[in-house]
Amino acid sequence: MGGIPAVSDDTTIRVSEIFGPTIQGEGALIGVPTVFVRTGGCDYRCSWCDSMHAVDSAYRDTWKPMAAEDVMAEVEALSGGTPLTVTLSGGNPAIQPFGPLIEMGHARGYRFGLETQGSVARDWFADLDMLVLSPKPPSSDMQVDWEIFQACVEAGQGADTVLKIVVFDEADYLWARDVAARYPDLPVYLQPGNHTPPPPEDDSALVDQEGVDARMRWLVDRVIADNWYEARVLPQLHVMLWGNKRGV
Amino acid sequence: MGGIPAVSDDTTIRVSEIFGPTIQGEGALIGVPTVFVRTGGCDYRCSWCDSMHAVDSAYRDTWKPMAAEDVMAEVEALSGGTPLTVTLSGGNPAIQPFGPLIEMGHARGYRFGLETQGSVARDWFADLDMLVLSPKPPSSDMQVDWEIFQACVEAGQGADTVLKIVVFDEADYLWARDVAARYPDLPVYLQPGNHTPPPPEDDSALVDQEGVDARMRWLVDRVIADNWYEARVLPQLHVMLWGNKRGV
Repeated sequence: MGGIPAVSDDTTIRVSEIFGPTIQGEGALIGVPTVFVRTGGCDYRCSWCDSMHAVDSAYRDTWKPMAAEDVMAEVEALSGGTPLTVTLSGGNPAIQPFGPLIEMGHARGYRFGLETQGSVARDWFADLDMLVLSPKPPSSDMQVDWEIFQACVEAGQGADTVLKIVVFDEADYLWARDVAARYPDLPVYLQPGNHTPPPPEDDSALVDQEGVDARMRWLVDRVIADNWYEARVLPQLHVMLWGNKRGV
Repeated sequence: MGGIPAVSDDTTIRVSEIFGPTIQGEGALIGVPTVFVRTGGCDYRCSWCDSMHAVDSAYRDTWKPMAAEDVMAEVEALSGGTPLTVTLSGGNPAIQPFGPLIEMGHARGYRFGLETQGSVARDWFADLDMLVLSPKPPSSDMQVDWEIFQACVEAGQGADTVLKIVVFDEADYLWARDVAARYPDLPVYLQPGNHTPPPPEDDSALVDQEGVDARMRWLVDRVIADNWYEARVLPQLHVMLWGNKRGV
């Protein structure tokens, strides 16, 4: 009795922000209208993280514990009750209990895509409409546990599963080629990294868009030079259009 | 005997340019590595055409009549013999005899996407991997013949068929909504127009990218305001990255 706060039960989602609809700015669903549910908390600390406000526990007091019903109500309010694709992001959204939300949303016609680094496998991955596995390359200073990553791929059977790999440099690129070779059946999306991610307390900070664009052009050239025609190369369109600004 | 020049037989393709591989910059295949085969000649004269060098017959002497075999050889040389997606563009590529090229390329593992306004239906549309029908909105000053357009949709049964509609203003937008409503089964891609298309003799002319980006943001807002979540909104990525430059 007592002592165990309601927010720690296993159906509460820790939400950093819910915003949209706007278009998905990257990856397989680029250009698709979507509402984002960004969760707070992450088991990774990527060197170039662009969402530190949803990762660093220093911002934990801005993360709101919400019941699945309440998240769904906010998604429905934002989308005017018209079903759309909901993007589950983070932080690492895989550490949250999304099963009930997905079930509830599906019953109302909503679709769900989730993006995670692949460090935590959940049985409800199979219920997603799209599972984006985004293993982090060497420049992140993270280490992929490939056994768990494989468990994520297997858990996602039933969802459309794709790989999305951020590339900053040649070492990342070569790593991405290796990862793609491990998973020949998964579509691969490559994305040039943003070396000017927003500081968590200032989303009006400027992006070196010229530098990011140059990396995008380099990445296109790199893929073409290798005749790697299965790879799809896409930028972060929302950053090109809106900079680091949040909520768009 | 004689008098009928070889270039006028019905297997000769009139080619404005073949270039790539680069990424597809717009529409359903955005980000996909591709070789472009741009044909010369068009039955339309859109007010904002961005490929006048392949449309205006003043440039006809730059269009090279080529046999399907020779086009295929150039595509293979550019792609290093590794199969990829070939984009057939124009001008209006539907006025060219692409059947034999598609058959030849398929036998070697190549895939074919074609983009046309939908003013000429061809039986070989069914052999395409992707058919992009891009009916021209009011701002183009063109008039769609909906009977022929419908024939194009029917001819394309067997190909993945999508609608891509360029939008400059509110009138275009409302027109796009009507077109999408006529074809509820076809995925719809909306693309903000470029009001600074390159003059045909100068591909280094500057693009008002800020203006085009502002139109893109407006179009996203417009779609969201209508809860039109089936529409996908994508810019011309190649223009964002490379300006009006040709051959990229």
